[in-house]
Amino acid sequence: MTSIVQNQWYVAAYGREVGRDLFSRTICGESILFWRTEAGEVTAMSDRCVHRRFPLSQAPSHLVGDTVVCGYHGFTYGADGGCVAVPGQTRVPRTARLKSYPVLEQDSFVWVFIGDAATADATQIPRAPWLDQEGYATVSGMEPLAARASLLVDNLMDLSHETYLHGGYIGTPEVANTPITTEVDDEAGVVYVSRHMDDADCPPFYARSTGIEGRIVRWQDIEFHPPCLYLLHSRVAPLGVLPNPDGTDPGGFHVEVVYAITPETESSTHDFWAVARDFALDDEGVSDFLRESNRTVVLQDVVALDVLENVLTGEPDGYQELSINIDTGGLAARRIIARLAAEGRGETAVVPARTPAVTR
Amino acid sequence: MTSIVQNQWYVAAYGREVGRDLFSRTICGESILFWRTEAGEVTAMSDRCVHRRFPLSQAPSHLVGDTVVCGYHGFTYGADGGCVAVPGQTRVPRTARLKSYPVLEQDSFVWVFIGDAATADATQIPRAPWLDQEGYATVSGMEPLAARASLLVDNLMDLSHETYLHGGYIGTPEVANTPITTEVDDEAGVVYVSRHMDDADCPPFYARSTGIEGRIVRWQDIEFHPPCLYLLHSRVAPLGVLPNPDGTDPGGFHVEVVYAITPETESSTHDFWAVARDFALDDEGVSDFLRESNRTVVLQDVVALDVLENVLTGEPDGYQELSINIDTGGLAARRIIARLAAEGRGETAVVPARTPAVTR
Amino acid sequence: MTSIVQNQWYVAAYGREVGRDLFSRTICGESILFWRTEAGEVTAMSDRCVHRRFPLSQAPSHLVGDTVVCGYHGFTYGADGGCVAVPGQTRVPRTARLKSYPVLEQDSFVWVFIGDAATADATQIPRAPWLDQEGYATVSGMEPLAARASLLVDNLMDLSHETYLHGGYIGTPEVANTPITTEVDDEAGVVYVSRHMDDADCPPFYARSTGIEGRIVRWQDIEFHPPCLYLLHSRVAPLGVLPNPDGTDPGGFHVEVVYAITPETESSTHDFWAVARDFALDDEGVSDFLRESNRTVVLQDVVALDVLENVLTGEPDGYQELSINIDTGGLAARRIIARLAAEGRGETAVVPARTPAVTR
Repeated sequence: MTSIVQNQWYVAAYGREVGRDLFSRTICGESILFWRTEAGEVTAMSDRCVHRRFPLSQAPSHLVGDTVVCGYHGFTYGADGGCVAVPGQTRVPRTARLKSYPVLEQDSFVWVFIGDAATADATQIPRAPWLDQEGYATVSGMEPLAARASLLVDNLMDLSHETYLHGGYIGTPEVANTPITTEVDDEAGVVYVSRHMDDADCPPFYARSTGIEGRIVRWQDIEFHPPCLYLLHSRVAPLGVLPNPDGTDPGGFHVEVVYAITPETESSTHDFWAVARDFALDDEGVSDFLRESNRTVVLQDVVALDVLENVLTGEPDGYQELSINIDTGGLAARRIIARLAAEGRGETAVVPARTPAVTR
Repeated sequence: MTSIVQNQWYVAAYGREVGRDLFSRTICGESILFWRTEAGEVTAMSDRCVHRRFPLSQAPSHLVGDTVVCGYHGFTYGADGGCVAVPGQTRVPRTARLKSYPVLEQDSFVWVFIGDAATADATQIPRAPWLDQEGYATVSGMEPLAARASLLVDNLMDLSHETYLHGGYIGTPEVANTPITTEVDDEAGVVYVSRHMDDADCPPFYARSTGIEGRIVRWQDIEFHPPCLYLLHSRVAPLGVLPNPDGTDPGGFHVEVVYAITPETESSTHDFWAVARDFALDDEGVSDFLRESNRTVVLQDVVALDVLENVLTGEPDGYQELSINIDTGGLAARRIIARLAAEGRGETAVVPARTPAVTR
Repeated sequence: MTSIVQNQWYVAAYGREVGRDLFSRTICGESILFWRTEAGEVTAMSDRCVHRRFPLSQAPSHLVGDTVVCGYHGFTYGADGGCVAVPGQTRVPRTARLKSYPVLEQDSFVWVFIGDAATADATQIPRAPWLDQEGYATVSGMEPLAARASLLVDNLMDLSHETYLHGGYIGTPEVANTPITTEVDDEAGVVYVSRHMDDADCPPFYARSTGIEGRIVRWQDIEFHPPCLYLLHSRVAPLGVLPNPDGTDPGGFHVEVVYAITPETESSTHDFWAVARDFALDDEGVSDFLRESNRTVVLQDVVALDVLENVLTGEPDGYQELSINIDTGGLAARRIIARLAAEGRGETAVVPARTPAVTR
């Protein structure tokens, strides 16, 4: 039985990755073929020919207009996955049809629905509007992770690790030392974790991009929409500079850090990351710096999580981990994901609203 | 339980591969040691010393006259597999004997019998006489395939794939477009598939080797002897040139394409291929061209089938493929192989004479 | 169920390998972290942080004084494995403690106890005093073996393989041809195998190191303390030169060859080897020669045993090996190891005192 949550939208790609070349990616264990029609629409269908399961993304398979031709025996499919031609006979079997996936291009991402397509509702997709919005400059990428998605969820929900794993990049002593507040909206299925540091060292990531010298106000407000979309609303400002009472914030620098956590298989993950900022919009030097810095940070996570996946694989049954206050948000995320997984399997969720998991 | 058909002869090697160096190859999951006696006879015995299972093909094991000496502790065996010397004592235990395999050198191949040696009957081995016959020039090779043997059987029984996978080498549009006729001799266990194209493009494989310019008559007559030997009787001729009523065919060019499909393990295969022609016998340029062309074509298959093996391995249970008319020969081959496998396990075959598998 | 013997001391490292850098090695399937305190004591504790199981040997984990700081979230542990600091809160959960291992530095080795620490008794550790004793010069190393420990035990207990696998290095025809005598002290759990060659070729290993020309007296006296420590007391002397009646032996050259056979996992082994000699003590050329020669010999074993591990893995159930007189010592070692394994699992040993295993 898969541990991957079914009946959910997942980020499959950046829109820029899908064009008139056949593009394949495994999402939640399913090999999916993506291509754009001549009119520019993204299509998503099974990457297995119905005949002898040859991958339609594998050369010499190719597009002819708005059809894809299998490179093994020439079975040909339209944009909706229906077969339109087979070799050696004129009649096409009526059951010859590729599985087609609900797909939506939004906020620079290609979202795909995994599960029972009849239940797909694109209005449920959480938003990350900054990624292609006027007033923001964005850098982004994707790193493959040889680790299960839950390890990346744990990682991102507990930013105290920035101090140790990402010291010299985005971590400073204050991150690990400052207590967090956690809120869980069980109905909406969203976890909020906040850490407001009012007098903190400024790590290079923010010092070089904002130009602030000296200590800073640094706020981290996490908003996680399980299972896939993680938003970190980050605000930095010179010491003492706070938003106005009316909510406007001309003295603050805002960075929206977005992660999409998409299972590739049970034990590997597509780690999509994006950094949108509302300052230095036209400064390519800042863009280059943030792209390189964030990629470096993500790769530090990749190394650590790949190691943890190996550790998990070799671990004896019944291994017990120990959790403390910093883990409150991560444990809440696990609870919601377990509930979504049960719902995705058609079970009534029996996960308690609050599991006592932090060791006192 | 193995899916590999037992109590059958398989091609283990070309005769030229076996000499006075110890040669090991895994055939149907069994590691077999081959060497030639001083008199030139091929021997086949288990490649595992009876003492501590050291491979007798592994250095510093070596031949001394007509005995092989184990490189670990010096156990020594004769050409019949019987042990003739052990270290530290003069008496040789009477049970010290390697499993010996029935073996026959014929048509340039070394055939070996896998199963109960008491049932081995060398007169049952199908023939491919062209491979070392006066009047033919032959090129041949073997490519290792990281895919189960049945994928190669499927591949070779349905040549419509030449049009797509081997376009520009041996495929033209007519191959995929021309219907086939299939005959099955259930008693003899042979499948025949024919495709006669009377007005076809001439692919480079035949244009450059025969010198014919313009369109051609192209006949493909497959004769498959499951589980191992596949013969493609190929005839090409200038447009309109047919054999004489008496069967003589001075205007035709004949190419005998032979494949021996030998399982290495459940999921890997030795793909032996040979191309024998009855024209341009002394033209080394034609030999070189056909060797390179056919090897290129085989390697295109290897890439495709290795991909399919990976697909099969990761596929959910209950996956259904779809078959059409072009698959009739391949489905017949699967039926006969299933029957042979049941017989090899000592079961009464319960495979129906005709399974309805083509999708209408 | 593990086949590795529990409740035993094993060699984990040479003392020189453990210092102020974090050092991790998997011993009997357990990942153990080793480091030296500022006072120079070796510590041994689990290499998994109690929080999210991050390996404490993995960068950026590091030592601060006599504590180790986890590189993921900063959990900090003392030399006894107790946690002394966690991020984001001042209270440390009282259950936060790494498993700590009994450890002893002796005879140049770091010994660690695997099993129930309450039963650890360091006086039970067998000795190899020559390795750091006045009057001996020692060379040593460790080679990783991708094979189960029992294959190395078999290998070392039956030196007839020197003639074949190590011919030209330490093997001569006399080793395989000379019968052995075997004694087993079941109570102490020690196996003795002796082979005294009174007129033998001198292999390069001894010819170049001792300077003896011509044939030699060569005695091999094995003393194996299962499961871990193997001692080969080797004596060579010019032809006819024997020890004095009072046991003194001024005319003999003595080499103490020591192996520690430590399981890394069920199917891999740390192959520690050392060669101590009582002659040419200050001759660096002899040290270099013996180091290179013995390492070459060990690597010949590594190649052979890695092959055997692969053979074992792919072998059908019920495979029977054949044993002869030379295997008497190895079979005795297997019996004692089986008894120790049963004791380690808390079972009453039911292994017969003498299993009839040699084929007549």
